[in-house]
Amino acid sequence: MKLDRHSSVPLYAQLRELIVERIQDGVYGQGDRIPSEMTLCAELDLSRPTVRQAIAELVSDGILEIQKGRGTYVAVEPDRLLIPHFNALTFSFLNLVNYEDIGLQPVQHVEPDPELDAAFNIPEVKHAGYWMLQWPIMFDQRVYGWCTSYISAQVFPNLGQSIASGKRMIDIKSNKYAFLPVKGSVSLLARPARNKEASILEIPKRTIVLAASGELYGRNGNVCEHIRIALRPDLLKLEIN
Amino acid sequence: MKLDRHSSVPLYAQLRELIVERIQDGVYGQGDRIPSEMTLCAELDLSRPTVRQAIAELVSDGILEIQKGRGTYVAVEPDRLLIPHFNALTFSFLNLVNYEDIGLQPVQHVEPDPELDAAFNIPEVKHAGYWMLQWPIMFDQRVYGWCTSYISAQVFPNLGQSIASGKRMIDIKSNKYAFLPVKGSVSLLARPARNKEASILEIPKRTIVLAASGELYGRNGNVCEHIRIALRPDLLKLEIN
Repeated sequence: MKLDRHSSVPLYAQLRELIVERIQDGVYGQGDRIPSEMTLCAELDLSRPTVRQAIAELVSDGILEIQKGRGTYVAVEPDRLLIPHFNALTFSFLNLVNYEDIGLQPVQHVEPDPELDAAFNIPEVKHAGYWMLQWPIMFDQRVYGWCTSYISAQVFPNLGQSIASGKRMIDIKSNKYAFLPVKGSVSLLARPARNKEASILEIPKRTIVLAASGELYGRNGNVCEHIRIALRPDLLKLEIN
Repeated sequence: MKLDRHSSVPLYAQLRELIVERIQDGVYGQGDRIPSEMTLCAELDLSRPTVRQAIAELVSDGILEIQKGRGTYVAVEPDRLLIPHFNALTFSFLNLVNYEDIGLQPVQHVEPDPELDAAFNIPEVKHAGYWMLQWPIMFDQRVYGWCTSYISAQVFPNLGQSIASGKRMIDIKSNKYAFLPVKGSVSLLARPARNKEASILEIPKRTIVLAASGELYGRNGNVCEHIRIALRPDLLKLEIN
């Protein structure tokens, strides 16, 4: 990219993008100090206010950081937590070995609902409804995601009570062999956070989050769990094999 | 959510979030007309300018749409293109059956590079470098993504020439059985678009994109291809199994 003095784009905006591209191309590496205002002025034959405005905008965008008395540096992106072998079952409740340490919220019973009935492929009849389970994805006391799992109350009639009384997962699962997830299909996409998700994930309203939702299937081929997950987009990466 | 007349948050901002949450909760469905300004004033005991400002902000955010002479509607999210069974090999070049229709850019040869050498696990010695292949993910004349694939020029010494001369994929792959991808590992994350990606994907600069990058392995266990993909976050969803 070269500066174009005949362009209708102001020079400070061109310089801003030139600096961005030098960062993207690795000319200025993460954590590196960028050249001083004076050096940039001299290199590119620009006025001091032009350089100052470009840098000010990049600082306000979080792309550059001023370290007082030391200079201007390329902001370092935080390390991301890797979720290894991410697949449809990664955030399944029924796939957990135990649930004591996950910060599970009080389990709620929800009435039959057209959207959930469609997900579970349950015809529109009176039925026992669903258990809704919610828990955060925590690591080092930081919230990385928020999981919601729906499980049929027909198949697990006492799940709410069992969890409230601290029954062990192994006992909850016993005799339910055919209803435990063995495969699944989730849609992963990026979308603005819902207000509740933004508040739990501690991000500004309507920030883009990674969202995964879909169905898990038991050995009998029926849907056994429906999951909806919202993930911090800036702190996570998912390994896909 | 209820309006709080004693809060330091202005009423229009509270109303804005109340409308957002009604949309998120499905009270106002996609494409539905929302109640008129007058109706909202009456329902919530608010002044007309308060209601007008909340709606104006949601229109400018793209959450509501004014249809002239008809009213204010909840914006409809575009249908997303589903990439079925997304996995590390989905956007592999070497996994393609043919490349004639993908809009492949002229193949470039790139010199040995520390980052690529590390990805391919090639020690720091003089070697033949890489072929860089780039093509868009197109559907219905719309760009959904941008793929970059690196392939070792040691293993495929004539790849550039073969492609330039229109050699068929089946012939390019013949005798290369051990070097064709059979598994892989990519990191999927959300990050701001690089300027070049933003321009190809036709999105504003630094919009969050879905990015996947990683290594594909051949039958011999060695890295045979390194891919870097940027995907439109608003138009795609990935099926993960």
